[in-house]
Amino acid sequence: MKLLYPTSLALDVESLKGFAPSLHPYDVRQPIPDELTDAEIMITWCNSGDNLKDAAKKCKNLKWIQSLAAGPNDVLNAGFDKSVTVTTGSGLHDHTVAEHTLALLLNAARKFYEMRDYQLQGKWPQHLGGPQPDRPKGKFTSLRGANVTVWGFGNIAKTLTPHLLSLGANVRGIARSSGIRNGIEVYGEDKIGELLGETDALVMILPGSEATKHVLNKERLGMLPDHAWIVNVGRGTSIDEEALADALDAGKIGGAALDVFQKEPLPEGSRFWKTPNTIISPHAAGGRPQGSEELIAYNLRRFCAGQELKNVI
Amino acid sequence: MKLLYPTSLALDVESLKGFAPSLHPYDVRQPIPDELTDAEIMITWCNSGDNLKDAAKKCKNLKWIQSLAAGPNDVLNAGFDKSVTVTTGSGLHDHTVAEHTLALLLNAARKFYEMRDYQLQGKWPQHLGGPQPDRPKGKFTSLRGANVTVWGFGNIAKTLTPHLLSLGANVRGIARSSGIRNGIEVYGEDKIGELLGETDALVMILPGSEATKHVLNKERLGMLPDHAWIVNVGRGTSIDEEALADALDAGKIGGAALDVFQKEPLPEGSRFWKTPNTIISPHAAGGRPQGSEELIAYNLRRFCAGQELKNVI
Ligand SMILES: NC(=O)c1ccc[n+]([C@@H]2O[C@H](COP(=O)([O-])OP(=O)(O)OC[C@H]3O[C@@H](n4cnc5c(N)ncnc54)[C@H](OP(=O)(O)O)[C@@H]3O)[C@@H](O)[C@H]2O)c1
Ligand SMILES: NC(=O)c1ccc[n+]([C@@H]2O[C@H](COP(=O)([O-])OP(=O)(O)OC[C@H]3O[C@@H](n4cnc5c(N)ncnc54)[C@H](OP(=O)(O)O)[C@@H]3O)[C@@H](O)[C@H]2O)c1
Repeated sequence: MKLLYPTSLALDVESLKGFAPSLHPYDVRQPIPDELTDAEIMITWCNSGDNLKDAAKKCKNLKWIQSLAAGPNDVLNAGFDKSVTVTTGSGLHDHTVAEHTLALLLNAARKFYEMRDYQLQGKWPQHLGGPQPDRPKGKFTSLRGANVTVWGFGNIAKTLTPHLLSLGANVRGIARSSGIRNGIEVYGEDKIGELLGETDALVMILPGSEATKHVLNKERLGMLPDHAWIVNVGRGTSIDEEALADALDAGKIGGAALDVFQKEPLPEGSRFWKTPNTIISPHAAGGRPQGSEELIAYNLRRFCAGQELKNVI
Repeated sequence: MKLLYPTSLALDVESLKGFAPSLHPYDVRQPIPDELTDAEIMITWCNSGDNLKDAAKKCKNLKWIQSLAAGPNDVLNAGFDKSVTVTTGSGLHDHTVAEHTLALLLNAARKFYEMRDYQLQGKWPQHLGGPQPDRPKGKFTSLRGANVTVWGFGNIAKTLTPHLLSLGANVRGIARSSGIRNGIEVYGEDKIGELLGETDALVMILPGSEATKHVLNKERLGMLPDHAWIVNVGRGTSIDEEALADALDAGKIGGAALDVFQKEPLPEGSRFWKTPNTIISPHAAGGRPQGSEELIAYNLRRFCAGQELKNVI
């Protein structure tokens, strides 16, 4: 039984030894070598589309793919047989994405992007410094006292939330099912309108799927207060980008800090290069799985024992 | 007995009634009106230099000045009689300055300033996104696992530190006296060299005084690793700016995120407009006292009772 592991990141392979499968490195940007096409297990990280398509065609013994990405849309779209179990790397990106999301929120509130524009012109942005009104109504100037709504309340949200709370934000969640999670009130889709109306900052951490496609559309953008910011670190597909660009241009929304887009890299012609109060981050929130070996070893043991795996899609 | 309160911020004056002194509003940008020059107590916030000089000359009955600034260098330099007690607004800016400092640290680690430069040119900064090495040695890319040294371990530092810890940073402090404070190991000046050598990010939250003048000089800058960032939210005078600009230009330092400068607004000719990896924030960390009334009422009661005041300089 062969397990293929990627050379696209530094893995501590020693910590994966001791299980039945033999461990084989492979290049995620090349076709799978003939002598490895009988593998049953494949770990993926930043594989090229061609590599995955090649694997889907040639690796007919594959039983399990462990992606190290939290949202392995690449694997899901590569044409693997439905019988192959896919597990995600959800959990490996919690800290990095939470940190980046917090940074995006603070950039929005404290307007560092506008400071930068002044700096590049050698100008001191007096209006952003010195004495200021303290958290004026109808503006998002601080996390302290701000209503932050987190849409998609999974692993990343649970890691992010304590930071928001300790900075003084009021946090509520939206997910498929409602209830209290980690002390936070999480609502179902039926309450979205109400929540959006009371939101100073909307953080989107949704997976890319048919169900999440354009969930933030023109109508729902219209439910947000004019000063509300949107931070998206989930997937670009969950936002109707034209509707968001319209709202930004019309000043119907405070701003948008976007780490993900429908098309990445963001195309030259995208309106977001020119919309006001827009922060463009190049899918930089995650990209650095932490604790991959622990997850692989955990699932590998369960796989060998015929037990249910963690993070099955 | 008269108390003068400033109209430069919205104060809940009702919450200050009930004590012996009568309460009188005054304009912080105008000379003190004749009928108020016999005041014994003066609250200051963003007073003009001329207003303070005028008050120092004319208000001969003054016994106590309560500044709402954490670092009331303006009052100290206005020529008031040495017999006048000055109390600071230390504590009123803890949350706002801590939030801004955290934001500056995250901007440094996640390089949003560089992302912005690309955005303004309509370019996707691929090198800052996608797969990245996880916290490579000799780089400051995340607070997680970073060594953060906080120089000046007072009220603001104590509010900032829990956020840094929960994001995974290792925090150590420097102050005039050593010992454990709020669970953090704080060192005296004798250990500075050792601490600087192990620092990924140096946060300076020092008051402006003779003793703190240019404490971060060429020699000490040289003790920091080449990748270390400096964040200054205390006073500009604590850094030898020429030495810092030299270090930035020579790449001998990771970068500098500066909210305070020796001269503010930063003059047109300042080298910091052009030094690499520099984030210029226009003294925007504080400027929004929170809880002023509580501090004034607390000290007012003690003043009337002849007790020692809080935050005496
Ligand atoms: N920007 C980056 O660099 C980066 C890095 C890592 C991950 N991500 C993205 O972040 C996503 C979330 O990661 P995670 O680890 O937190 O995932 P997770 O633990 O699986 O959480 C996903 C959350 O989304 C909710 N959800 C799913 N479909 C929904 C729908 N149709 N309506 C409302 N809520 C829905 C789920 O609701 P229930 O809990 O009710 O099931 C769950 O709360 C990933 O899928 C990935 O796309 C981006
Ligand atoms: N950027 C902004 O908008 C903004 C806003 C508010 C405040 N500030 C600045 O931040 C400063 C600190 O505020 P805070 O409320 O935290 O003050 P604080 O509570 O008085 O703390 C000051 C700290 O600095 C230390 N310190 C003083 N002189 C020192 C020296 N010569 N060497 C080493 N350490 C020294 C003190 O050490 P000990 O504890 O050992 O005495 C103390 O830990 C203020 O003075 C103000 O200048 C800036």
